[in-house]
Formats: sequence, structure tokens, C-alpha cells
Amino acid sequence: MSNEVNHQVRLAARPQGTPGPEVWEHTTEPVPEPGEGRIVVRVSHISLDPAMRGWMNEGRSYAPPVGIGEVMRALGLGEVVASRNADFAVGDTVTGVLGVQEYVESDGRGLQKVSPTADVPPERYLALLGMTGMTAYFGLFDVGALKEGDTVVVSGAAGAVGSVVGQLAKVKGARVVGIAGGPEKCAWITGELGFDAAIDYRSENVSQRLKELAPEGVDVYFDNVGGDILDAVLGRLAMHARVVICGAISQYNAEGGMTGPKNYMNLLVNRARMEGFLVGDYLPRWGEAGTELAGWLAEGRLRSREDVVDGTVADFPEVFLKLFRGENTGKLVLRLKRA
Amino acid sequence: MSNEVNHQVRLAARPQGTPGPEVWEHTTEPVPEPGEGRIVVRVSHISLDPAMRGWMNEGRSYAPPVGIGEVMRALGLGEVVASRNADFAVGDTVTGVLGVQEYVESDGRGLQKVSPTADVPPERYLALLGMTGMTAYFGLFDVGALKEGDTVVVSGAAGAVGSVVGQLAKVKGARVVGIAGGPEKCAWITGELGFDAAIDYRSENVSQRLKELAPEGVDVYFDNVGGDILDAVLGRLAMHARVVICGAISQYNAEGGMTGPKNYMNLLVNRARMEGFLVGDYLPRWGEAGTELAGWLAEGRLRSREDVVDGTVADFPEVFLKLFRGENTGKLVLRLKRA
Repeated sequence: MSNEVNHQVRLAARPQGTPGPEVWEHTTEPVPEPGEGRIVVRVSHISLDPAMRGWMNEGRSYAPPVGIGEVMRALGLGEVVASRNADFAVGDTVTGVLGVQEYVESDGRGLQKVSPTADVPPERYLALLGMTGMTAYFGLFDVGALKEGDTVVVSGAAGAVGSVVGQLAKVKGARVVGIAGGPEKCAWITGELGFDAAIDYRSENVSQRLKELAPEGVDVYFDNVGGDILDAVLGRLAMHARVVICGAISQYNAEGGMTGPKNYMNLLVNRARMEGFLVGDYLPRWGEAGTELAGWLAEGRLRSREDVVDGTVADFPEVFLKLFRGENTGKLVLRLKRA
Repeated sequence: MSNEVNHQVRLAARPQGTPGPEVWEHTTEPVPEPGEGRIVVRVSHISLDPAMRGWMNEGRSYAPPVGIGEVMRALGLGEVVASRNADFAVGDTVTGVLGVQEYVESDGRGLQKVSPTADVPPERYLALLGMTGMTAYFGLFDVGALKEGDTVVVSGAAGAVGSVVGQLAKVKGARVVGIAGGPEKCAWITGELGFDAAIDYRSENVSQRLKELAPEGVDVYFDNVGGDILDAVLGRLAMHARVVICGAISQYNAEGGMTGPKNYMNLLVNRARMEGFLVGDYLPRWGEAGTELAGWLAEGRLRSREDVVDGTVADFPEVFLKLFRGENTGKLVLRLKRA
């Protein structure tokens, strides 16, 4: 490997608003050799997640910011190509925080071994069978305390997490309304995924449509977007509703800073709660959840859609922006081809 | 009684922003006679509460709005002066929703009999021994899930509810920081009420002071004010914090509508929740809470301060505005003198 090159994308500057090419630096290093007790992974798939935008900001958050000059943090999937660690063999497929690069040297901590098959492509372990599925599962069931018969609304409903949330709610006997952008996404969630209804926020009045589609109010709202849509749903809460805060993609690039939900006093009117969570806190239960998700997937009760873009790490900055333009349907993944 | 007059204050128009004299109508009626099974109460004390501002707005809320032309809704205390109801005797003192008027005719439902003494003045039943105390008790203990050792922050800390919240937190072994406006209020809550610290939001940087006073973060925030102070505290939450939404007095008269908390994503960062409540939902447990509050009051572990203004019902519109100017310390009550 030593005559190969490891292409990397590093954070060059903190973005103001939408991260343009100026915030990235494209570098190369020699492909690493594993230290004692360590492994080298060749990255084949990079996960693109809205949360990555937050990691680029300075300041206190749940994870330290990516430092200027550091390789951009990213989840990914790859193959072990060198190992001096008894827990990993060359040829193992692993997922974890691998970064926006072609190779990573690691002690293996935090990496999970997975087993893609003809039926389960590798990118699915970054989608329904990975952190994405876990986020939907624990957010809806634990934080949202979903009950059979609830009316559930999910925003970003054609996105990676949202599309799983809605399906999980259907599995548990809830009524599900998805909010998504554009007729294709809406048709997909009500058609293939079995949502009861969809609201196209680009062409419809969300508040008015919620009134029609959830006349008794919204019991669980799983929010991926924030902004006006969060306010619209807060205006339609049922008594004792649970608002699950998973993300706020509409706000991450706002140059004037975040806008808060002006309708938050509806939490009082409806004796409702709004609660945030991080999927990493549920790590001890990922096994249990993964088994259940894989079972429902095998039974055809869940579907996982990955929006795979073939490219090189150099394409990462542009592919990443698809998330914020709402251009992906399902889980956005960059599948690496080598230069 | 029939040659006396019942002075009333009615809602004449829905206010835009701060309710000026133009939204009120001063009317008179003959003093009512009780119908069969009913009573007449002569009102002696009118409770002034921020929530009343919300009742003046049109639209869906936890209670129907006061109708245009209706007597303004208000809690109060008074004496039964005529009774055709076996549950009430002439001379009984009662509290409940009596309205901004001198006399009210009622079937007695929703009225509680109370027993003022030399030690317990009647206005206290509108303060610590009334809805105010119940709001603090259930908001802090049930919604806030207070634990010994928690760091508690309360805004509107020298107000009716806030001053009780801080004292209750001290009773349970928490560390308490109060946020109030002006040096007198701050001195009162740390001096007489035993809060650990106070922040004067008019002269201090709330966010900076919270960093100093709650270096490990805020476990329970009891919010009465909303706005910038809510944002400042959201920026200093501890992990698994509970934000209790009781009121948003800084926002009720905002002409451009409410401003939402732009820092709400800190709920995610800290796996925290923000929850609203209404004290009326706890009615079955008011007896239990009242006994406990009265006991702590008798033991000197709690103090109740009532800010009593002597006046007539015609003074109500002006006295009401003291709440929004932060001019009251403790529970604001209008004690009626007769014209």
C-alpha cells in the first residue's frame, strides 16, 4: 500500500452559512501502516448526515468541533486492509467514524463489524441497519413514547431518518403523516413506504393540511427540520404530545443564526414536552434494536432506500450540499471510486 | 343589597400589545340575588396573574378567551353574602374565578372555602396557599422532577410563582439561582427567601453570570418569562436538564408576536426536555400540596409575600400593568375598597 496515496478532505475554515468550497482543503498523505494493536481500513462508503454541519461550527456541543486543518469527521464503511489487532482480520467490513478520506488507521475502538450480503448491500449499514435506523428507533420509541393509535407527524420524511421513523410508526399501529419537499418524495412515502398521508411543504400550507390530516391533533412529532414547519406542528399538538428534536436542517446554514419556535408556548397549552436526544446514549441497546430492525426488514415490513452517489472524496463537498437542498431521497451515501 | 351597585370591568376589545384603557369597559349592574341553589359572593381581593393576558387573546388555548363584552376573568377571594346553597353559609370566605367585579352570583362549583386568621391574611389564599403555590409546587416537583443537589434556576424569581419555586427548591436541598429585575428584588430573594444567588437581568449579563453561578450547568429551569432569558438558560443546561414552561411574560405584549427560543437545539445537545403544564390538571392533588405548603409556611421554612394594592375595580386596568412592568414583588393582589 505504501506507494498509494490517501486522499483526504480537511476543514480549512469555519463556514458562515452554506459551506462553500473555500471551507475545504484537499490533501494527500501516504497510506498509513498500522501501529501495534491497530488496523488500517480502506474506506468504501462515506455517510452524509445533517449533523456534520454542526460539527463544523465552533463552540460547545455534544461533540467537540472538527478542528481547523483536521480531516472532516464522517461515518463510513470500509474494509480492513491491514491488521495488527486480534479483533480484526484483513477483509472484515467495518463501520464507524472513518472520516472523509480513503484510508484510516485506527485502534478499532468504536468500529463495528458488519456482514454485507447479496441481499444487504454495504450502504444499508449506514442507513436502516446503522446509526440512521437507530436514531429513528430510539427517537420514536423511547423519546417519543409512541403508542398504538397515535397520530405521528415526521418532517424530513423522505430523508434517511424520517423515512424510517414513519415506517416504524406504521409497524406499531400509528397513523403517520410525512412532511417532505416535492411530489416525488410525497408519492414515495405514501406509496412505497405506506405512510397514511404526505404534505408537500413546497406547494402546500402545512398548517392548514395538518388541520385536515390530524383533526384530533398530533401525538408525536419527530422533527428533523426546525423552522416554520416546527412552528406549524406545534400549532397542532394534541394534549400530552411529545415533540422529538432530532435535527433542524432548515436552520443549520442560516447566516443570522437559528430561529426558535415561536409557538413553543403550545407546549403549555397542551401539557406537551419537547425533548432532544442523541443516539449514542443508546449504544448499550443497539444490538437489540438492530435485531428488531433487521427482522422487520427481512419480513418486508420496512424498506431501506439509499441514495448512492459514486465519486471520489474530492466530490464530498458538493455531495454534502445535496442534503441542504433536499436533493436526496433516503440515505445519502458517497461510494468511493478510486482515482 | 338591592340598592347597591355592582361595579364591573369588561373586555371591550382585543388588545394589540400592551392592553391600554381602550380595551376595557367599566359597567355597573344591580347587585345580583342568588337563584335557587346558588350564592352571591362579595369580592374583596382580585388576583392579578400574567396568564390573564393570554385569556384576552382570541384563538385556541387551554381556556376559551374572554369574550368581548364579558366581565374580565380573574381569580379572587370574597365573602358569601347571600346563599340558597346548603354547601355555603353567609360569612364563608371563598376563592375561585370571581371576575373583575364587586359581586358575583354562582352555583358554587369551583369555589373553595378558606379560613383566614390573624396569622394568615386572606390574600395569602391567592398566593402561596392558592393557585400560585400549587403552580410552583407541581411545576417544580412533578414537571421539573427536582432532585436533591440539583442546580435550579428560576426567572421572574421575585414574582408570585418564582419566589415560591426558589424556596421550595431550597426546602428540597437544591442550589437555587433566581433571575429578577433590580437590586431590591435580588436582595429580597437572596436575603429573606434564602436563594443561593440572584442575577439582576437589568444590569447583568445573564449568560455570563450563569456560567459563574452554575458552572456545572442548570438541572432544572423554571421559566416564567421567555425571551432572551430563556435563551440564556438554554445555553447553560446540564445533561438531562428539565425546562419547565410556566409562563412567558416578556412576550405576552410583543406586538410582532412571540419570539421563540433560538437556543432550543441545546435540548438535543444536553438530552434535555422542555415541558409545559397547567396547574388545573393537578386539582385532585391540591389538598395534599396545600397541606404540605401550609406546614412549611407554619414552620417558617417558606415565606409568602403579597404585594397588596388598595383600590376599586376601576383601578384594575392600571394595577394589572404592574405585572408587565415588573413593578410587583411577590403576589400582586388588588384589595377592593368600596366607592
